[in-house]
Amino acid sequence: MRPKIYLFGDSITEESFGDGGWGASLANHFSRTGDVVLRGYSGYNTRWALKVKEKVFSPPEREDAPLAVTVFFGANDACLPDRYGGFQHVPLDEYKHNLLAIVDFLKNRWPSTCIILITPPPIDEDARLQHPYVDNPSGLPERTNEAAGSYAKQCLAVAEECGVSAIDLWTKMQQFPGWQKAYLRDGLHLTQSGNKVVFEEVIKQLREEEIILETLPVDLPLLEEIDPKDPLKSFKN
Amino acid sequence: MRPKIYLFGDSITEESFGDGGWGASLANHFSRTGDVVLRGYSGYNTRWALKVKEKVFSPPEREDAPLAVTVFFGANDACLPDRYGGFQHVPLDEYKHNLLAIVDFLKNRWPSTCIILITPPPIDEDARLQHPYVDNPSGLPERTNEAAGSYAKQCLAVAEECGVSAIDLWTKMQQFPGWQKAYLRDGLHLTQSGNKVVFEEVIKQLREEEIILETLPVDLPLLEEIDPKDPLKSFKN
Repeated sequence: MRPKIYLFGDSITEESFGDGGWGASLANHFSRTGDVVLRGYSGYNTRWALKVKEKVFSPPEREDAPLAVTVFFGANDACLPDRYGGFQHVPLDEYKHNLLAIVDFLKNRWPSTCIILITPPPIDEDARLQHPYVDNPSGLPERTNEAAGSYAKQCLAVAEECGVSAIDLWTKMQQFPGWQKAYLRDGLHLTQSGNKVVFEEVIKQLREEEIILETLPVDLPLLEEIDPKDPLKSFKN
Repeated sequence: MRPKIYLFGDSITEESFGDGGWGASLANHFSRTGDVVLRGYSGYNTRWALKVKEKVFSPPEREDAPLAVTVFFGANDACLPDRYGGFQHVPLDEYKHNLLAIVDFLKNRWPSTCIILITPPPIDEDARLQHPYVDNPSGLPERTNEAAGSYAKQCLAVAEECGVSAIDLWTKMQQFPGWQKAYLRDGLHLTQSGNKVVFEEVIKQLREEEIILETLPVDLPLLEEIDPKDPLKSFKN
């Protein structure tokens, strides 16, 4: 059976199968070699993710180790505690411990699986004020780019500590002039171009872990392998 | 665990996770309630599909019955036997029997699963001449709309005979003026608008079978169900 790639994260993962989404692009890329499984939970932080981890993944006795798992949390943890998103806030120290615990859980369950941590994206505070989730008379954004940056840094520290891959999306995106509107549609969630960045970074990390389309086994004959003079020969096994 | 929706078919299924693809749109629609599993095999006809069916789906002892399976073959069966796609051609009678056998296989394995047959789309012969897969000096298209229509009719007959759902894509698409360019990008494969038609028709058929987003169980708390004053209450079970 085809191996799986799990995408575990918050709304930026949940909506990754929208038009041009990074999850759909991964599924398209691996269309004959792997199943991309969506496990995105809008609004979730690492505290909540930790509570549900056993329900997110199939029991180990029911399936083989997945090829890879992306773990993409922090955008909600980084909500400021005294703003309207405060109920989603998780202190920086706890974020680090929660993320360590998630990686630990995955490594214990599937020692050979490639784990890729993805930092939260940068935040465009102006756009957050223009697109608040609830009435926000304070005139202050519920997330700041600086806070997101602190969580991104901790995410990278966890990856380093655990010896797993990481994508520093917070830094990567800000290297592009006009990233605020180019990559983010509401100051937080991704545009199609932003989705493309994530897709390409995930593919790059997978490649570094030697999870490469060209070398993954294809479970059934490809059209170009089928002999037009005797097509059924390819299906004899 | 989340129930699955399998998409079993040829290239129109295989590429359904591209930008705006009908498979990705289904995965997005059911993002918190079901896993959409891609089982598209470019170039395949029902003869080849029948040979591989046991490898396409997980063994029954390893997973619960899926919610639904779409079966979307015929575009390759309908290649004309004396043109360059002749090695993919399957005679109309055999197409019918193969499709019956596929439905039989699925019904035996999972009696409660919703099966949706999808007819081949219409063919824009001019575009097929402009976008041949191989050098085609004959000046004749390898597929015709008339042939695709005969296979579509047999597909509907199989659905009727087996008492399963069907989507008459061949007829549906041709009701729209300018369907040739609006829905098909090379006379055969779907544009984003064509993908939208398939997505909407699949959702409609699922709804008729009472597979509806709003009534499917959600496996983990939705953000709007979480009490901002006591978020962890939602995660107590």
